[in-house]
Amino acid sequence: MIKVGIVGGTGYTGVELLRLLAQHPQVELCVITSRADQGMSVSQMFPSLRGYVDLRFTHQDEAHLDQCDLVFFATPNGIAMNHARTLLDAGVRIIDLAADFRIQDVAVWEKWYGMSHACPDLISEAIYGLPEINREQIKQARLVANPGCYPTAVQLGFLPLLESGIVDCSSLIADAKSGVSGAGRKAEVGIMFSEAADNFKAYGVSGHRHLPEISQGLARVAQQKIGLTFVPHLTPMIRGIHATLYARIVCDTDLQALYEQRYANETFVDVMPAGSHPETRTVRGANCCRIAVHRPQQGNTVVVLSVIDNLVKGAAGQAVQNMNIMFGLRETTALTSIPLLP
Amino acid sequence: MIKVGIVGGTGYTGVELLRLLAQHPQVELCVITSRADQGMSVSQMFPSLRGYVDLRFTHQDEAHLDQCDLVFFATPNGIAMNHARTLLDAGVRIIDLAADFRIQDVAVWEKWYGMSHACPDLISEAIYGLPEINREQIKQARLVANPGCYPTAVQLGFLPLLESGIVDCSSLIADAKSGVSGAGRKAEVGIMFSEAADNFKAYGVSGHRHLPEISQGLARVAQQKIGLTFVPHLTPMIRGIHATLYARIVCDTDLQALYEQRYANETFVDVMPAGSHPETRTVRGANCCRIAVHRPQQGNTVVVLSVIDNLVKGAAGQAVQNMNIMFGLRETTALTSIPLLP
Amino acid sequence: MIKVGIVGGTGYTGVELLRLLAQHPQVELCVITSRADQGMSVSQMFPSLRGYVDLRFTHQDEAHLDQCDLVFFATPNGIAMNHARTLLDAGVRIIDLAADFRIQDVAVWEKWYGMSHACPDLISEAIYGLPEINREQIKQARLVANPGCYPTAVQLGFLPLLESGIVDCSSLIADAKSGVSGAGRKAEVGIMFSEAADNFKAYGVSGHRHLPEISQGLARVAQQKIGLTFVPHLTPMIRGIHATLYARIVCDTDLQALYEQRYANETFVDVMPAGSHPETRTVRGANCCRIAVHRPQQGNTVVVLSVIDNLVKGAAGQAVQNMNIMFGLRETTALTSIPLLP
Amino acid sequence: MIKVGIVGGTGYTGVELLRLLAQHPQVELCVITSRADQGMSVSQMFPSLRGYVDLRFTHQDEAHLDQCDLVFFATPNGIAMNHARTLLDAGVRIIDLAADFRIQDVAVWEKWYGMSHACPDLISEAIYGLPEINREQIKQARLVANPGCYPTAVQLGFLPLLESGIVDCSSLIADAKSGVSGAGRKAEVGIMFSEAADNFKAYGVSGHRHLPEISQGLARVAQQKIGLTFVPHLTPMIRGIHATLYARIVCDTDLQALYEQRYANETFVDVMPAGSHPETRTVRGANCCRIAVHRPQQGNTVVVLSVIDNLVKGAAGQAVQNMNIMFGLRETTALTSIPLLP
Repeated sequence: MIKVGIVGGTGYTGVELLRLLAQHPQVELCVITSRADQGMSVSQMFPSLRGYVDLRFTHQDEAHLDQCDLVFFATPNGIAMNHARTLLDAGVRIIDLAADFRIQDVAVWEKWYGMSHACPDLISEAIYGLPEINREQIKQARLVANPGCYPTAVQLGFLPLLESGIVDCSSLIADAKSGVSGAGRKAEVGIMFSEAADNFKAYGVSGHRHLPEISQGLARVAQQKIGLTFVPHLTPMIRGIHATLYARIVCDTDLQALYEQRYANETFVDVMPAGSHPETRTVRGANCCRIAVHRPQQGNTVVVLSVIDNLVKGAAGQAVQNMNIMFGLRETTALTSIPLLP
Repeated sequence: MIKVGIVGGTGYTGVELLRLLAQHPQVELCVITSRADQGMSVSQMFPSLRGYVDLRFTHQDEAHLDQCDLVFFATPNGIAMNHARTLLDAGVRIIDLAADFRIQDVAVWEKWYGMSHACPDLISEAIYGLPEINREQIKQARLVANPGCYPTAVQLGFLPLLESGIVDCSSLIADAKSGVSGAGRKAEVGIMFSEAADNFKAYGVSGHRHLPEISQGLARVAQQKIGLTFVPHLTPMIRGIHATLYARIVCDTDLQALYEQRYANETFVDVMPAGSHPETRTVRGANCCRIAVHRPQQGNTVVVLSVIDNLVKGAAGQAVQNMNIMFGLRETTALTSIPLLP
Repeated sequence: MIKVGIVGGTGYTGVELLRLLAQHPQVELCVITSRADQGMSVSQMFPSLRGYVDLRFTHQDEAHLDQCDLVFFATPNGIAMNHARTLLDAGVRIIDLAADFRIQDVAVWEKWYGMSHACPDLISEAIYGLPEINREQIKQARLVANPGCYPTAVQLGFLPLLESGIVDCSSLIADAKSGVSGAGRKAEVGIMFSEAADNFKAYGVSGHRHLPEISQGLARVAQQKIGLTFVPHLTPMIRGIHATLYARIVCDTDLQALYEQRYANETFVDVMPAGSHPETRTVRGANCCRIAVHRPQQGNTVVVLSVIDNLVKGAAGQAVQNMNIMFGLRETTALTSIPLLP
Repeated sequence: MIKVGIVGGTGYTGVELLRLLAQHPQVELCVITSRADQGMSVSQMFPSLRGYVDLRFTHQDEAHLDQCDLVFFATPNGIAMNHARTLLDAGVRIIDLAADFRIQDVAVWEKWYGMSHACPDLISEAIYGLPEINREQIKQARLVANPGCYPTAVQLGFLPLLESGIVDCSSLIADAKSGVSGAGRKAEVGIMFSEAADNFKAYGVSGHRHLPEISQGLARVAQQKIGLTFVPHLTPMIRGIHATLYARIVCDTDLQALYEQRYANETFVDVMPAGSHPETRTVRGANCCRIAVHRPQQGNTVVVLSVIDNLVKGAAGQAVQNMNIMFGLRETTALTSIPLLP
């Protein structure tokens, strides 16, 4: 059994980790921490877990995380970097669901996240946890930077185009729409029901933190600098991301075959039949990215539609997938539940 | 392996049965029928099932249902009664998710459902599939009438009060609120998004078909005639029923203890701590009824809050629970997935 | 022109007052205050008001409220009571949209609101601003306590029954459902989109602050003590209250005629045809209470369905209606916009 | 008073026309037709209109439309073209809210709409009713083709860029998101609540009927052929369109000033301050298009955000605006109500 600890379990990625790990046959949930709610039982805060999770929130100082085999950080940005060194030294492996180790260029990270990095030396060791690109490296990793939700949907959608070099990398466009849970569980006016329901808006057009993460990932597979316009939007649903991706084709190919071949061996990426329009609800609660590729009017613009559940393939599910890979388990363990539709 | 057939698989109870049965270790899904969509693959209609269900819809005439061990009818009212005799004679057991066999008094049934009953002689054999009341009879049943969604939430909520005889049975009130999926998947103006979203209304105040079903069930446990006012409402959510129940206390007792004891051995009924307010989302996707019991201002009115997922404990989940009981399996098999929250 | 000030204009009742008053032909909007957002332009916070409201939020200390003819308090409970005396002494009339002056018994108020009342001597002068009961007194009032949202829907629904004495006053039940905007615009976890959407729950079953307000109002018209069970629920819509009211009939009468006659001269109460089910969206944005009265199965329980827009007839609209009455204007001035459907 | 008739008043554009026209001081609503619901009172179908509209639906054959000054067609595509000639000959002016007269090239129209055009000779007379482009021609028009909802949002957003010739016209991208009311009030499975809620999807990526309409309009202002990729999406809200527009800048300019100047005299187009993100709810119920223009990271891609209420500026409101222009009224008459927020 893998002894698992979760730091910061009161947010949406935390409760989603609990949902997935509580039924994982190889995992022993040892400890979950929360400063604000220490002492409260997990199932009091999340009654959906009554009968499944019997833990109470512990203060991090009393959590004995060093006795875990693996610690998930489901914390705000800037927390994991303060604890990573100590835990790694104690032989504990780490998956950070926040952004602390996602960007290799520390100056870029510090600019976008507005703080100094507490352990820049660990950044180069950290493996970016997108298994469809980095599976081999993840196996050996001590420290995995779990990708952001937008970056997962956008990268998986663009990947076959950039790897094959058939599009103009200088003018990529990612128009992405997220459900409100992507904004987390911290009370803020803009994500209150009466503000976000029956409403649609873009945000962060001048620059969103996921832009450098996506650019870094795409540049790596394209093996060149890329130009990306990334516009995130808030849509009135709880879970789900829909990325609509645009690129200019510079070299003809069978797009449908390209995508099917690229993902033929990827359990968690589903290339839909030609002409499909994936709906976010078809991945609700599941560790799955569904993709369709279109070429409207046979013009030179390719349109890729890529959907995930932001809390699963975009966060907790991908983290469990990474854990399975790190510990030599079957990659699908505890990740086979069917999406909830309707 | 239990060979299972589903008649009428294109509605919400049908797709929910598929979700649950596709991962049931003792079930072999043999056939699923649909007149309108025969030939179409199930996963084309419901992409959430891609990779999990590999069947196509078959016309019922070609479905060889008589080779199944069990057939679920996920059809509109008035279908199962035309096929039950033939299937039973062929040794096939039946669970009807519609209302054909729920009401013992055929005249009452014909009045509320507006049609003649095609096989009234089978009604008395049919077992009402509420395991928390009829578990022993369900074990031996050939024909199970799976309860309605409102009736499940309301009966489980009232049960301890009526069994213990501590309330006035002549003035019960059930104010029930349902998500829109309870109205089914047939296109009708009133349940379109633009009509049902951001809106709340009562309906059927003069009389709803679930009234005689609830009354019959409550009268049986109360062992007397009961007077019930039942008002259903439509609320803008997909899944979930919240029943708010009112009764006048005629005999003092410890209500919390009464409920906890009654359901102590029921896996799928969760009596919450005193003072709780169960939310429908805490049972989303799960075969669970959560109940809280209140006595406001220590007056003589008891208020019971009872929530279920109408498609699970209110339909497909309860049907699978009944199947497990009928076939001697562990009652929780394939019914342990954790509710999806948020 | 009536010189109007608004204290606390950043909440939902504030912006709704602005929407209504900006197009009121007899009103000059002089000042609107906010401590937290002083200096910000109103239309920056609420872009829906761009081109209609040209004010900035002012700190209350610099607001010169004493130069207004009328001040609306759209503040949390406990604010108006600290300023009422000074303003009244300066000749300014007041409409308080909060609860400070709604309860005549100061001990009851202090118990339910958890604070000492700052000017108990003004309570007896305050007129409860439900025009359908108190129109004559409102005309002369200096200080109007604008009713709560639930109390408006519940009282207007019960009124004809209690005035006519045909129901048992000791066992009234009000099962009320509110949209989320009723909880205000203060960021709290429970009313975030991802918590409140696709979910339904009761709250405050043990006791809600609107209970004593409703009881006081109903007792006054019934001219006797009443027994009321009041259960509020949160439903995933922005605006709207649906109250489902139950009472036991003790004296036969033509219920439809009773309601139609009682409200024949009330512009803002619409008694629907027999058999109707009013929907909350049919009053969205309008100062209207729609009511239907039912007697299911001709039993002895009467069921009344009463819907309002909680921000209009349940708050800002009713406040403007009261202002119109107080200043001798036509009661419908600025209150005739048609509900927004769909 | 202008004598107005409405053909096809049971859809969403119909009820929205009624809402706007019922309070128009220069309009006498003479007749409203519906084949399916003739004889029913309008306020029975739409209780929001109780007290405001006293008409019943009339069969078109008995509607005496030739006695009107103006007839609105709020019908499906392909209806107005069968009646236009007769009405025009009788001296009646026409505003068609459907697509019959929007496309000047009849072959293109017939290809996209899948039917023969019944009166191609009238197409060239028809004026495209986008006042911000065609105001002068609308004044004299007998026959106005009211623009589609997507085309309104997209054209108003692109207009300043194309008129000024500062972008590459060959690679325009319009990523548009619509509320569900845009799909009309006809019952179809895909727009039922349980299908469309908590879900997001693209549709019609291979080609949507609004594509040729937008292309025609943009080409006219650009005075050259344009290349446009148009991807519509369905988002779970009732009203609202959010168009996110992308173009490649080929000539530097002050974008904010460009937009502000272009729309300085347009009452119904609101250019927001630099850095804004217009929300669809800020135009809910109002005849307004709010626009913000961005240039992320000072790159060569301009991003325009354009929002409208699809039923108002995208349909009925624009139709009333056109009527006001045609009849020499103040353009804002009956179009000044403030958006409903929240």
